[in-house]
Amino acid sequence: MLVSRADDVGRLLISCPDRPGIVAAVSRFLFECGANIANSAQHSTGGEQPVFFMRVEFELGDLATRVSALQTAFGNVAEQFGMSWRLTQAAERKRLAVFVSRAEHALLELLWAQRAGDLAADICLVVSNHPDTQALVTGLGIPFVHVPVERGRKSEAEAQQLEQVVAHGADTIVLARYMQILSPLFLSSFGGRVINIHHSFLPAFVGANPYLAAYDRGVKLIGATAHYVTEELDAGPIIEQDVARVDHRQGADDLRRLGRYLERIVLVRAVKWHVEDRVLVHGGKTIIFS
Amino acid sequence: MLVSRADDVGRLLISCPDRPGIVAAVSRFLFECGANIANSAQHSTGGEQPVFFMRVEFELGDLATRVSALQTAFGNVAEQFGMSWRLTQAAERKRLAVFVSRAEHALLELLWAQRAGDLAADICLVVSNHPDTQALVTGLGIPFVHVPVERGRKSEAEAQQLEQVVAHGADTIVLARYMQILSPLFLSSFGGRVINIHHSFLPAFVGANPYLAAYDRGVKLIGATAHYVTEELDAGPIIEQDVARVDHRQGADDLRRLGRYLERIVLVRAVKWHVEDRVLVHGGKTIIFS
Amino acid sequence: MLVSRADDVGRLLISCPDRPGIVAAVSRFLFECGANIANSAQHSTGGEQPVFFMRVEFELGDLATRVSALQTAFGNVAEQFGMSWRLTQAAERKRLAVFVSRAEHALLELLWAQRAGDLAADICLVVSNHPDTQALVTGLGIPFVHVPVERGRKSEAEAQQLEQVVAHGADTIVLARYMQILSPLFLSSFGGRVINIHHSFLPAFVGANPYLAAYDRGVKLIGATAHYVTEELDAGPIIEQDVARVDHRQGADDLRRLGRYLERIVLVRAVKWHVEDRVLVHGGKTIIFS
Amino acid sequence: MLVSRADDVGRLLISCPDRPGIVAAVSRFLFECGANIANSAQHSTGGEQPVFFMRVEFELGDLATRVSALQTAFGNVAEQFGMSWRLTQAAERKRLAVFVSRAEHALLELLWAQRAGDLAADICLVVSNHPDTQALVTGLGIPFVHVPVERGRKSEAEAQQLEQVVAHGADTIVLARYMQILSPLFLSSFGGRVINIHHSFLPAFVGANPYLAAYDRGVKLIGATAHYVTEELDAGPIIEQDVARVDHRQGADDLRRLGRYLERIVLVRAVKWHVEDRVLVHGGKTIIFS
Repeated sequence: MLVSRADDVGRLLISCPDRPGIVAAVSRFLFECGANIANSAQHSTGGEQPVFFMRVEFELGDLATRVSALQTAFGNVAEQFGMSWRLTQAAERKRLAVFVSRAEHALLELLWAQRAGDLAADICLVVSNHPDTQALVTGLGIPFVHVPVERGRKSEAEAQQLEQVVAHGADTIVLARYMQILSPLFLSSFGGRVINIHHSFLPAFVGANPYLAAYDRGVKLIGATAHYVTEELDAGPIIEQDVARVDHRQGADDLRRLGRYLERIVLVRAVKWHVEDRVLVHGGKTIIFS
Repeated sequence: MLVSRADDVGRLLISCPDRPGIVAAVSRFLFECGANIANSAQHSTGGEQPVFFMRVEFELGDLATRVSALQTAFGNVAEQFGMSWRLTQAAERKRLAVFVSRAEHALLELLWAQRAGDLAADICLVVSNHPDTQALVTGLGIPFVHVPVERGRKSEAEAQQLEQVVAHGADTIVLARYMQILSPLFLSSFGGRVINIHHSFLPAFVGANPYLAAYDRGVKLIGATAHYVTEELDAGPIIEQDVARVDHRQGADDLRRLGRYLERIVLVRAVKWHVEDRVLVHGGKTIIFS
Repeated sequence: MLVSRADDVGRLLISCPDRPGIVAAVSRFLFECGANIANSAQHSTGGEQPVFFMRVEFELGDLATRVSALQTAFGNVAEQFGMSWRLTQAAERKRLAVFVSRAEHALLELLWAQRAGDLAADICLVVSNHPDTQALVTGLGIPFVHVPVERGRKSEAEAQQLEQVVAHGADTIVLARYMQILSPLFLSSFGGRVINIHHSFLPAFVGANPYLAAYDRGVKLIGATAHYVTEELDAGPIIEQDVARVDHRQGADDLRRLGRYLERIVLVRAVKWHVEDRVLVHGGKTIIFS
Repeated sequence: MLVSRADDVGRLLISCPDRPGIVAAVSRFLFECGANIANSAQHSTGGEQPVFFMRVEFELGDLATRVSALQTAFGNVAEQFGMSWRLTQAAERKRLAVFVSRAEHALLELLWAQRAGDLAADICLVVSNHPDTQALVTGLGIPFVHVPVERGRKSEAEAQQLEQVVAHGADTIVLARYMQILSPLFLSSFGGRVINIHHSFLPAFVGANPYLAAYDRGVKLIGATAHYVTEELDAGPIIEQDVARVDHRQGADDLRRLGRYLERIVLVRAVKWHVEDRVLVHGGKTIIFS
């Protein structure tokens, strides 16, 4: 059912070993609670040891007051099937900390999408290693923290970044063309997801300066890739990708220029799916319930 | 679960007034029959009188021998919710009669897709008002019937076409650039679906010669539209559409040439969804469980 | 040659009856002036009375001081072939007046593109029939004029708009989701081009509320169209179009939301080509030298 | 001018160091010969030592009898600018030898495009290391040669292939999913171009089994790349690329299936441009005058 973005919308995300009866058990549970299933989708990896994934969007009156009883009750169903799961309220919006360097286009698109109501999340903090975007951000009433990253003192900078991210209650970090590599320590210390926009069609052109590499190779399409960040650079689970056509007339600078549009669109799509609990990760890949 | 295209795959398609408990009832029914839900998807129109649509793909051993008992048993569930429904076996392939005039590209693509295993259906008959494609078709062992459509004698031709279609057991007619308009009588007499490929992005450029009209208007994209045929010309439910970029350098003939690629791709996608029972029609529009 | 956007870049646009020798005459003229042809492209309509179109981008030192002598000299070549033509300096940027109503997305994209250096033009004025975007616009140092359009008093409003547009030296008006129809009198009085973004794939869904119409028809792609405005509504020469895929799950509001991205991208592309003198109009259609 | 594909259409392709006056000299030459320029396009690499590229399509009566005098005369212009060049007649169609293994889809698309008049070339020979497509090919009256490639005896097979290719007068080899790697000796011995279709978006997923690699990486788009073959595997100049969207529901086999459509479309586009003399190669990249 087409759901109004109301207070009584809940989401249930599940992964577990696949076996018959899961859908029946979950849908009976929700029915008996009085919830109406608005949307549901499922996926199984198949193969010898199939893994089952499911996302249900449901409507239930007074969800805010009933959610914790609901979670307790679902625990029994979950235990029976060995589920990993979470049950969330749409009304509890995710909190994003956006990391940015000098280029502002990806940040601007996030701000614009949020303001237009396309991104159901709060941008609670912008962190940058450069002061360039400060006026823009604070002008919108969003806290801005300038954390320079000096050569050889990255760990101090990261400690400061982490402190700020935690202090502002962010559950997701969005790297909106942030040009520093986050350390494994930072990634493991942050108890949430980190989403990056890489300016190429991964796995082509990993590493720095992908537009120059794309130009040198003479590709006919350039791309952008939004992915969750893992310790291995540019190798995390891909959330979204898109491409645009180029030809011999475009130089590396033109590719950069065209690529900015791709980066904006691809990053916002990925963040949108993430904040609406549409993404599950398994085996280094994403399942997107779009 | 990723399903092998085996004999034990069944499909259940449902539409009914939306209300809580439908998914629970359907999934419990299948679970109790011992069926494993491989894929399921649902949709509701929302609004004042929401209509619910569901497609389930399931696996059940010995389906062929059990299917009629299954249908009988499901009747009880269906009655409870006021469902329109059908329960089919993937192994019972749809039977296509392809209507064609002189242009062979759409026919060739259907034949090719079928031969490559991309189209899980049988092409049981080709009907044409011209003999041009006869050798091609009969060379593949497919019956070909030449039914000329003479001015003022269309009803006789249609009677002959219908007789052939029925005699060959076709449940679907595919108009693969068939240049005659089928009469309401023919459409109501044929007890199945008729799919047409229109060579424009409907509803732009209805009627004859859409490429010339597109050229005259100076559009920057040309399109093709596959739709179910209804009495009103070019107004039936749209199954699939796609477009390709053109510019001022292309004349009307070039648009025709480029359009052939679109027509082939769009028609095969639509027919593929149809024969896999992925399309439901409601209110002049399609729900595609792709 | 890949041209730096420097002071010495000129552009020559030509249309005339096609006949042998035009390219030779134009390229010899430029060579003898000492200009280097950086890019050139041409097109002919073909047919009985073929019309020839050409765009040349050239480099010539001290262009600013030499341009008027160059124009005089080229007049002789032009006369010989019966050319309509213009010879411009890239350094003389076009001046845009942007008309907007309540929706701000198309305006924001223009402002962003201009600021990012993607739009080589000056936005000299924003005119709106609503005050909503005033703070945003004036905050960027751009003049904003609020001209309410009251029922029955449109001609007064248009007189005021025209006065402002003239006073700010605009040579192009961009209708960035401006929800009023400009009168033929206004169009004929304004001595420049007016570009509109229509929120459908024209000629499908002309008129008001195209997203609702698209939803009702059940199309599988929605579009946006940027075109020059002529007296006949939504019938002017198309500059650019693009589409995005939708399915049965999206309601009319979702189409609106998705469409905003299309509108932004398509409008900016069209304005960019216009301000770089890449668009010629002939017979109700555009020739785009992209 | 929109050119009829007539006997009097010639093409002139040029590359040389860039300097002022090239266009003027070439267009004057053609004008003085009485030729009418139907289309022309140019490109320069820019930079310190800019290289200029140009393609002109012209019409000249009695071209067949005048072409060799024309070539001699143009030699003088060419010498003056240090040009590499060729002047061809559209009526002299390129001759293709198609190499194929078991998969027939790319071959079928080439045959279909040729038959439909979309590919202005002759398919003079099909070579395969498997007999599977023999009946199909010979049924169309095209010579088919079965050259098995046995382990350790590739050089003998290549000698036989080369002999056949030469004997049939092929100037271009198209690898239509030919699953053997051609040796540097073969490539240097064949006095023409070799075009390959690689089933990934190069440079992602070079080497064997790219669909499995794409599946394992979890990309959201799969691609296909047509390129000229050079000694380094999958590193030759890219002619054309395209992509299609996939999601978590598709297994590696589905990617293969979807990829077949991409491969067909991309390969035919590339071959079409090649046979119409629209491709120049410089510095490991292509310039496409599309």
